Order: sequence, then structure tokens, then C-alpha cells
Amino acid sequence: MLWSGWGDPAEAAPLPEPTVGLLRDLLGVKTGDAAPVALTAIEVAAPRLGDDDLAALAAAVGAEHVRTDAESRVRHTRGKSTPDLVRIRAGETSDAPDAVVLPGSHDEVLAVLRACAERRVAVVPFGGGTSVVGGLAPEGVSAFVALDLRRMDAMTALDEVSRTAVLQPGMLAPRAEELLGERGYTLGHFPQSYEWASIGGFAAARSSGQASAGYGRFDDMVTGLTVATPEGTLELGRAPKSAAGPDLRQLVLGSEGAFGVITSVTVRIRPVPPERAYEGWRFASFADGAAALRRLAQDGPLPVVLRLSDETETMIGLADPAAIGDGSAAAGCLAVLGYEGTAGEIAERRARTAAVLREARGEPLGAGPGEKWRHGRFSAPYLRDALLDVGAFAETLETAAFWSDIPKLYEAVRRALIGTLSGAGTPPLVMCHISHVYPAGASLYFTVVSAQGDDPVAHWDGAKRAASDAIIDAGGTISHHHGVGTDHRDWYAREIGPLGAEILRAVKDRLDPAGILNPGVLVPPAARE
Amino acid sequence: MLWSGWGDPAEAAPLPEPTVGLLRDLLGVKTGDAAPVALTAIEVAAPRLGDDDLAALAAAVGAEHVRTDAESRVRHTRGKSTPDLVRIRAGETSDAPDAVVLPGSHDEVLAVLRACAERRVAVVPFGGGTSVVGGLAPEGVSAFVALDLRRMDAMTALDEVSRTAVLQPGMLAPRAEELLGERGYTLGHFPQSYEWASIGGFAAARSSGQASAGYGRFDDMVTGLTVATPEGTLELGRAPKSAAGPDLRQLVLGSEGAFGVITSVTVRIRPVPPERAYEGWRFASFADGAAALRRLAQDGPLPVVLRLSDETETMIGLADPAAIGDGSAAAGCLAVLGYEGTAGEIAERRARTAAVLREARGEPLGAGPGEKWRHGRFSAPYLRDALLDVGAFAETLETAAFWSDIPKLYEAVRRALIGTLSGAGTPPLVMCHISHVYPAGASLYFTVVSAQGDDPVAHWDGAKRAASDAIIDAGGTISHHHGVGTDHRDWYAREIGPLGAEILRAVKDRLDPAGILNPGVLVPPAARE
Repeated sequence: MLWSGWGDPAEAAPLPEPTVGLLRDLLGVKTGDAAPVALTAIEVAAPRLGDDDLAALAAAVGAEHVRTDAESRVRHTRGKSTPDLVRIRAGETSDAPDAVVLPGSHDEVLAVLRACAERRVAVVPFGGGTSVVGGLAPEGVSAFVALDLRRMDAMTALDEVSRTAVLQPGMLAPRAEELLGERGYTLGHFPQSYEWASIGGFAAARSSGQASAGYGRFDDMVTGLTVATPEGTLELGRAPKSAAGPDLRQLVLGSEGAFGVITSVTVRIRPVPPERAYEGWRFASFADGAAALRRLAQDGPLPVVLRLSDETETMIGLADPAAIGDGSAAAGCLAVLGYEGTAGEIAERRARTAAVLREARGEPLGAGPGEKWRHGRFSAPYLRDALLDVGAFAETLETAAFWSDIPKLYEAVRRALIGTLSGAGTPPLVMCHISHVYPAGASLYFTVVSAQGDDPVAHWDGAKRAASDAIIDAGGTISHHHGVGTDHRDWYAREIGPLGAEILRAVKDRLDPAGILNPGVLVPPAARE
Repeated sequence: MLWSGWGDPAEAAPLPEPTVGLLRDLLGVKTGDAAPVALTAIEVAAPRLGDDDLAALAAAVGAEHVRTDAESRVRHTRGKSTPDLVRIRAGETSDAPDAVVLPGSHDEVLAVLRACAERRVAVVPFGGGTSVVGGLAPEGVSAFVALDLRRMDAMTALDEVSRTAVLQPGMLAPRAEELLGERGYTLGHFPQSYEWASIGGFAAARSSGQASAGYGRFDDMVTGLTVATPEGTLELGRAPKSAAGPDLRQLVLGSEGAFGVITSVTVRIRPVPPERAYEGWRFASFADGAAALRRLAQDGPLPVVLRLSDETETMIGLADPAAIGDGSAAAGCLAVLGYEGTAGEIAERRARTAAVLREARGEPLGAGPGEKWRHGRFSAPYLRDALLDVGAFAETLETAAFWSDIPKLYEAVRRALIGTLSGAGTPPLVMCHISHVYPAGASLYFTVVSAQGDDPVAHWDGAKRAASDAIIDAGGTISHHHGVGTDHRDWYAREIGPLGAEILRAVKDRLDPAGILNPGVLVPPAARE
């Protein structure tokens, strides 16, 4: 993973010249070389851990698995939000962990937690490091370690009768697909972060994949969890479903390392489909397209992938950077649909879907736009690096709501983003798509591109606050799949209310009485008297 | 609801003579008249509430909604497990509430909780009163009120765009279907308790309906909840799904009144299907049939109803009391499948299902057994009353597990029940069916019939303990859809482990610091030092 951006540096590509021109002409980007500082030039403050602290950590995991060198610490500094990247590209390392600790087993995780609880050293679980909501930047800590789970990356069981697999948290998603694929199975979980995200991270952050319409969200896939906490071990999941009390799995999913460290995840698996097919449909407006998606979500048939770009996103054709600005992008709103199964199953499902979409005034565009989307489905984060490189700013945010709230939510967030950034002198391009649908509602995913301006982090902070206020005021959830972290915490507190926050604090106080687990992440602090 | 048994007394029917003969010959039932005592003859201890307590309750809900008369108290004593019925039929009222309080609104519930917290009077939420796990019999209380929610029985909103409805907790399920049906919708939730169960109870106890394969469990249907607690109000559910922290709805669902009183439930609704069709299939063995159900659950197509009786249940033909013992029951194992949709959709789905079942060595039995099941789907509790009336004992218990654990779980529970009851001199008939399937596992539902013996409650208690031990030892959950109550609490503690129990206590302590809500129900007590 590139320390200053996304993914494999070999995959990065500069922006095509027409795109750069567009950024300059449309958004006033002062295009030029805005490359990051050199990794070797970055300075990190001296670790705030004493020799006895480091000895205790070494006793827990072995001295060779406790790292305090600058590069390790820089590589575990914050996550991959655009403000995170802007700061790390400038060499700003104030949130660097004091050490990186790599446990090899559940028992070693328990030992680290016990040692850290005793010494009041905070612990930030680190999977793929792909958080975009400040989930890796604890607040109010005197010292903290990044608990990098990469050594715990095995598949420990595969039950072909129950169709479940037990995966360790540090396994990255492509490795899980590789191991499952050897046995003919897939998880079917492909979020945009897929190439670099971990199984534990998916669970801790309630991830949703691009094929959620067909495979469900990650929280739907999890049937069991093992969690290490400072107070001991939690093992959950004796049956797919149960009426024995609250579903405590659903309390761990989304807990973002604040309640414990997930050390094992049992997931539902499915046979690899023999064929996959993608296609595009055009709708005259976002409202028309949304109505069509709603019909499929409520009455079926439901494709495996189902997404709809609004007019702006369709015009820009974000999925195909090479086409930006060349006039080839479609008018109206582009929907992408994906199907899986045997060729016969796909043909049948596709025909039934087409009948619904035609009735909903959709126009078939054939396989082209679908295949283009498939090809570029994991490339947006690379594009963001290229935009940063030429002096532009690009960031995303997302929400979800019930269908009847979607129109006002869409308008409110757009207005908030455009108003704030234009007011700050960096008028943005705001694009949106629906990427996840349910019978009762859908998600909205916004992408914002603007000039960086004098202080891109501050500009974005203002826009993001306004958008978050708009989300809460319009009845949406502060995150459909990015999570809470520190960035969304204050709005999350409004979403769940004072008593919801009390519940989280009660659970955290019991499992983590020393308050060492990801302080400041997720759990809203108690109101001051 | 019949105070001493189930449902509408007009629906009750005595057992046919061949059945009585079978009970006598096969199980040694000393058949005779074992009718309950007269309601008017039942005595209840004086209420343990002072005038000031009653005045505080009257201030909260109005004096006319606070009842202390004997009949009201008897009608709110315990639930509908067979031991509950045996005791109430004998006039045993030691668990009678000291008063019955009927709030009319969320604010009145809050007022009751505040008054009771102040006075240390326990509160047991009461919906349909159909608990079969001791959920209405608190432990260790000096005085308690039954909080009967029947006045809160309105549909307060219907959103046809999002396809959701907001229902108050005291609404009984048939009324919900009636109101939704007038608008063309259904909830699709039909547990065996359907005719007398409440919306709030479905949510509080994580109910599963007979059409769960098509409509999902009740916890799948809930998109929002309002909860009154002694510490204030909790409002949850801004979107169908969210990544904003743990899903706190899933902490309320299954909380059985121990965390708060559910005062409003937002549920997903669906259009009423134009047609419904049921059919039967025969399999040579329970293992063969289970393999066929597993194939449908994992690879589809999935009927709306999908159940499989084991050899004994098939032989007895429990769904059709009139046929018991007349030799008309089928050999092998009977599966019942249900389909919904247009006639064309049903035909298509049925044909595809048939292809799978034939390959799995199933033999089609046509509509007969399916329609017979549909006709008797809510009648088993009436049958139980008739069995009690002639001196037999009938009770059920259920569990769920992953598919690979199902065979050993099935054998272990059967062995435990047969061994214990035979050892006590009341050899039982033990029947089982799979009633709910998931890709990763299924539920097992056991029905036990035996002679009452000298002390039926004690005999059953021993058998139930042995079965519960067997369930936990074999890796199952202590309940798939009956819940925890007081009856399952000790095994539930083993299921979730000490840290799971700590989580529940932490949440309860925060929301209910005085410990007035359903004491002894669900939440395992802390281990004594």
C-alpha cells in the first residue's frame, strides 16, 4: 500500500490532458506539480513509550513484532481520507502511533490488551489501514500503539455443509477470495477498498460491497465472531439466527475497535458463479432511475449489482477517467446492473429485469457501460491520487435513508456541499450515485471535486460539517458504509441520541474499563456537567 | 384469550376417541377428566402495593387503567407454557401481578416507569401474554405490575413509498394484517401464536413466522423502534441499513422487556400476494429431507414456507388431529412447501423447486398435505389444551444450529427427552420438525407428549433441563424463536459466556438502574463472589 495515497504505486496513472484542462477551466484548479514529500524526509516525534512499555509489548508478541522505526510509524498514521492524504503528503505526522505491534494469535492480542490496559497505553486495531473516517486517529491519548493484524491472516476452517468459513482478521479480501476460490467458493464482498481492506476491518466497520444487492452487506454475511477485550474473550454465533436475546454479533459489527479486537470472523460463503454479466441502462432523470431501482428492490428481480449515477456523475463519466471531458459520456442518468449465475440464469434474470426497466422508462445501453464500470470499479482511489497530484481535491461521503426521504436528502446534501465550497472560493463538482438498495431505502454516495485552495483540509472540513448537518437534519444516517471513526462521531451522537450514546459507553466501560481501545473513535463522550 | 389455556374457547374441540385410545395405549396416559378449576374459585394474594403506589400509577395512566381485581390479575399470571397452564389450571397464582396497568401512550409508559423506578416496583411488559419461556414471571421481586399494552394498538403511519408501517406494540397480529390488508399490504409474519400475539411481543422476543423463508424473521422486518426506559426514550432506525456503529435495533430486538418497553415498531410491509399454494413432499428419511431443504436454502429456489417433519411427527400426523392413529398418515418424512405470487409465478417457482426435490429423492404428494397443514397451522395450542383435559402432557422446545451440527443436535435432544421422561416413568412421544431454514443452518422444533404422571411440572422440568444441556453441549442456541425468559436464562448464560452476560448487565444497569424491568428475565445475574 502506498504510504502517501492508495494501493500499488505501479497501478497509478497520471490524469489525461483533457481532464487536467477541465479541472483548470471548470473548477479553477491551479494545476501544477503537487507531489508529496519524500517518505525518507518525513520526521516523526520520539515514541512516547518507555523501555518498560516496550518490554511488556515484546513479552506479549515477541520483540521482533514491536516496531518503532519511522517508516513503520508513518505507514500506520491515520487512514485514507483525503484530509489524511493531504496531511501525510505534506509530512504531517502528529497522529503517528508510538509503536506498531504485530500479534500472531488471539492469545497474543489478549496479552497486548492486558499489558496496555495496565500501562494506560491506547490501542488502535489496524487491518488494511483504509479508514476514511478518522478511525485510526485516536483522540486524547498520551501514547498509542497500532495493533497491526497482518500476521493473523489464515483461513482456519471451511465448512462446506454449512457453507461457512472462519477467517482471521488480518487477511486481506483478495487473499480470502483466492483461498475460497481454490475450493470453488466466494465471499462476494467487493467494496471499492477491496484490494487493500481486511476481513476484520469489514466486520469492525460494517462494510458494504458493490454486489450487496446480490450477496448482502458484510454484516449479513457474518455468522460468528471471536473478540479479544481487555476483560477477556467473547465468542458469538451458535446458529445463523436465534431468539436467544439480543443479537450481540450486531453489537460487535460496527464497533470499530472501541469494544475489542475481532480476532476471528465466521462468514457465509457461496459457490463461485460460472458467469458474470454487466450492462448499462439510461434514465432521463435521477428521480426516474431511482424509481426504477426502487421497483427492483421492492418487487424484484434483483440483479447482483445495481447502481445509478445522477446527471452530473453520468456526464462526467467518473468510472472512465479516459473519457472525462471528451464528450462521449451519456446524457441523462446511467444505471449499471450486474448478473451472476449460469448463462441461462443470467439471460432469464436479465430479460425479466429489462421488462421492469423498460416499463420504468429505461433505455438499454448494452454491455458497454457495464463492462466499463466493472473494469474501473476499484480505480477511483487511484484517480484521487492523480487529482491530488495536479492540485485538485477529491473526496467522498455517503449516507442512506428510507426511499421517501431520499429526494430531500439528495438535494440537502448537494446544496450543503456546493454552498459551502463555493462560499470558500472553491466551487465544486458534486456527483452522486445510489450504490446499495433495500426494499425500504437506499444509500447515496457523493463524490466532490474542487480546487485545493489555500487550505484544502479546512475548506473540506467546513463542507463536510455542512453536509453532515444536512444528512442528520434530512433524516439520513451519518454513514451507510464508511463508518463513524472520529470524523462522524458528533453527528452519530445526534443520530442515536443521548440514550443510544449511554448504551455504547456502558458497553465500552464494561469491556474496556481503562478506556484504551481506540479512544475518541465511535463512542460519543459523556456530556460535561 | 382463554385464561386457563389457549385462544378462543369457542375454537376448542375435544380429542377424537381414537387419539385418546392411542394416548392410553401408547403412553400410558390415565385418561379421564382433568378439567381446570373454575376461574371464579381462584384466589389471589392481596396486592403488595400501598395506596400511594396505586395513586402514583393512577397519576400516570388514569385510575380507570389501574386494575387490582382478581380476574385481571389471574389473566396476567405467567404465560402459555405447559407448566404455566398446569399451574394456572390448578389455581396456583403465586406469580400473579399485584396490579395490571394499561398505559395509553409512550409518555404514559415513561410516567409508569419513572413512578415504578422511584418506588422499586417491578414492571413486566405484557403484549399478547403468549410467552412460553417464563417471560412474564419475574424473579426476586417484592411487588410487580403487568404493563398491559393493549390500549396502544394503532397503526400510526403507513409509508407506501418506503413500504413501511409504524405500529404500536399492543396491536395483535391479526389486527395488523387487517389494517394493512385494507391498503393491499401484509406483514407476512405468521408464527403459531399469530392469532393472539402482539407486535411489541414479536419485537421483544425476536419472533419467527411460519413463512420466514419468504418474508424473513420479525427482526428482519423491523426498520425502526421507539423504546421507553426508566432513563428516557430511545429512537432507532434512520435507514434500512447503516454503518454508523453497532445496530442498536438488534440490541432491543430480543431484549424481552429487560431494557425498556417498546412503544412503537416500524416494519417493512409487502403487497398481499394474489395467490397462495401449499403442497406436500415425502422423503425416505429425515436426513434425506434435511439435505433437500438445505439445497433449497443454499441454492434456491426458496418457497415462502418450508418445513420438514421427522419420521415420528409424520407418522403421528400432528397437523391433523382427526387423522391421528387412523393409519392414514404417511410413512417417511413429510415436507410442506408454500408458494406465493401470481399463478404464473407460483407455477414457475413450483416447477423449479420440484426439479430440485426430485433430484433430492423427494416424492410429490400434491396439494393435500399442504392444505391440511395450512388449515391446522394455528391449531396446535388448542390441541394441547385438549390433551391436558384428558390427562396427557404436551410441550414444545426448539433450537437452531449450523447445518453441519444439525444431525448430532437432533439426536442429542431426542435422547435427552426420551431418556429423562422414560426414567421418570412417563415415556414420551418425541416429534421434531425443521421449520426455519437459512443458507448456513436451520431450526429444530420438538414436540413432546407423555402421560402427566404424579407431578407433571417436575417431570417436565427434568426433561427440559436435560434437553437444554444437550442443546448447549451440541452447539445449538437455546432458542430459535421462543426466547429466553426465566426458563432459558441459565443456558443462555452458557451460550453467550461470562463476557456476553456482562454486556447485557452493563446495558441494563445503564437503562434501568433501579432494576425494575422484568427482573430475572433474560439477563443472567452476576456470579456471586
